[in-house]
Amino acid sequence: MKLAGIRLPGDDRVHVARLDGETVHVVTDVARFWRDARGWTAKAARLSGAGLPATSVRFAPPVPPSARVICVGLNYRAHAAEGSHEVPEYPTLFGRWTASLSVGDVPVPVPTGEAGLDWEGEVAAYVAEPLVDADSATAHAAVLGYSTFNDLTARRAQKLTTQWTLGKNGDRSGPMGPIVTADETGDLRDGLRVQTRVNGTTVQDGNTRDMIFEVGDVLSLISRTFQLNPGDVIATGTPDGVGYVRTPPWLLQPGDVVEVEIDRLGTLRTPVAGRNRQEDPR
Amino acid sequence: MKLAGIRLPGDDRVHVARLDGETVHVVTDVARFWRDARGWTAKAARLSGAGLPATSVRFAPPVPPSARVICVGLNYRAHAAEGSHEVPEYPTLFGRWTASLSVGDVPVPVPTGEAGLDWEGEVAAYVAEPLVDADSATAHAAVLGYSTFNDLTARRAQKLTTQWTLGKNGDRSGPMGPIVTADETGDLRDGLRVQTRVNGTTVQDGNTRDMIFEVGDVLSLISRTFQLNPGDVIATGTPDGVGYVRTPPWLLQPGDVVEVEIDRLGTLRTPVAGRNRQEDPR
Repeated sequence: MKLAGIRLPGDDRVHVARLDGETVHVVTDVARFWRDARGWTAKAARLSGAGLPATSVRFAPPVPPSARVICVGLNYRAHAAEGSHEVPEYPTLFGRWTASLSVGDVPVPVPTGEAGLDWEGEVAAYVAEPLVDADSATAHAAVLGYSTFNDLTARRAQKLTTQWTLGKNGDRSGPMGPIVTADETGDLRDGLRVQTRVNGTTVQDGNTRDMIFEVGDVLSLISRTFQLNPGDVIATGTPDGVGYVRTPPWLLQPGDVVEVEIDRLGTLRTPVAGRNRQEDPR
Repeated sequence: MKLAGIRLPGDDRVHVARLDGETVHVVTDVARFWRDARGWTAKAARLSGAGLPATSVRFAPPVPPSARVICVGLNYRAHAAEGSHEVPEYPTLFGRWTASLSVGDVPVPVPTGEAGLDWEGEVAAYVAEPLVDADSATAHAAVLGYSTFNDLTARRAQKLTTQWTLGKNGDRSGPMGPIVTADETGDLRDGLRVQTRVNGTTVQDGNTRDMIFEVGDVLSLISRTFQLNPGDVIATGTPDGVGYVRTPPWLLQPGDVVEVEIDRLGTLRTPVAGRNRQEDPR
């Protein structure tokens, strides 16, 4: 089953909806959904009726504003190597605020002072249950499902100091696709192909079976420092093929279209825009 | 004027309230407040009537769940030096999620695997207006006010990789005091003394006039990469005197009480607890 965030006309809240091709079935608002993600997911599967045409709603990230988006850097050996990093002993974790999230087909601006935006196609995992000092198996089982994600990066800002946070939180720079529940995706360790294309040219072609840190291990480690909450998201890291390490560097320019296509999760399409950042089309 | 976040009995929302000694006057809920922080602050000043006894409400961070807490590392020369860092050319920025925030007198647990928690007494600044590509003066003028803040740090988790995020987001590890409006604090450049005490012993004694990056400069820089929103918070960095660099290291243990006292902002008291992290007393 696919679950998406949607905005209904005249309603401030984001709702979670089941997505069936061109039709959406509203489940409940996003705050309620994550208070009982398993229960609402089961209810979502049983919803019947005509639904709403997908064209009549605006899509939105399906997570609450308080969600943490915890990103794993350097989670594929070949990507660590292309940036001249050692294979890490622990997952390198950095954060996105939900204010940086977006959805497919929303234009993402190149921030001021950047030569462009870099692509990082990857899988995002959604936490369904609170996790405190959890072991890897428990943490793995707490994942509701997965989506496409593009960790679009402002490299200048990312590399200004040792800490990557600034360059990882550009406006609308974290588009996420609909959540596909874990029963339909299988285990990432069994291998989902992750491809990124720029204007139709393939620039990344990896496979989740090459991840260094499995999502259950990452969640387990985090849960020892802070409690993971339902709705929290792990961006599991990008394979090799990013733009800034190329000779010459290749960064996304206004007018470019970047697509992330992942087995069983679908395709996430993002147009790149100029820097009129106040204009949010949502 | 002092503004605090409060929870009223039987209401899920956090409200902003004017704090007059032992009395609170409810202004409006936190989402509405930050949509017009200047207007509501002016209204708050005019509120009259008996108010509620402060003992009848629970305090809470006065920011929306979507707020970004952007922390400046290494913003005092002596603190950069004690951690063997160069004086930086740009502010080192890392992030806290609002899920890590707390208020005074709430026990903060030592996370699993940590030898204790380290203190970092500092000033937090609250953004009142949207900022996009703002110059330093505009950004400086957009600060509503300041509060005490303790950036309690899990050093093991912070130093696990190059990225500090994990160790800076322990449960309830970011207590913040009430906001004191900027008309009452004056400019941080004119100097507010920042003291931290552990069980009554002074461990940090700095002054905001020794900051490397002024809050307007920090906000201006950030606003070039992403739009700052009302309710966003800048934690302006801690002076020297933290615990982990001492010989032997000195970290907070369950039973310890840490206080941050800042001129014109008051005193923020935090007891340190054992690691029963599921029990949130709020």
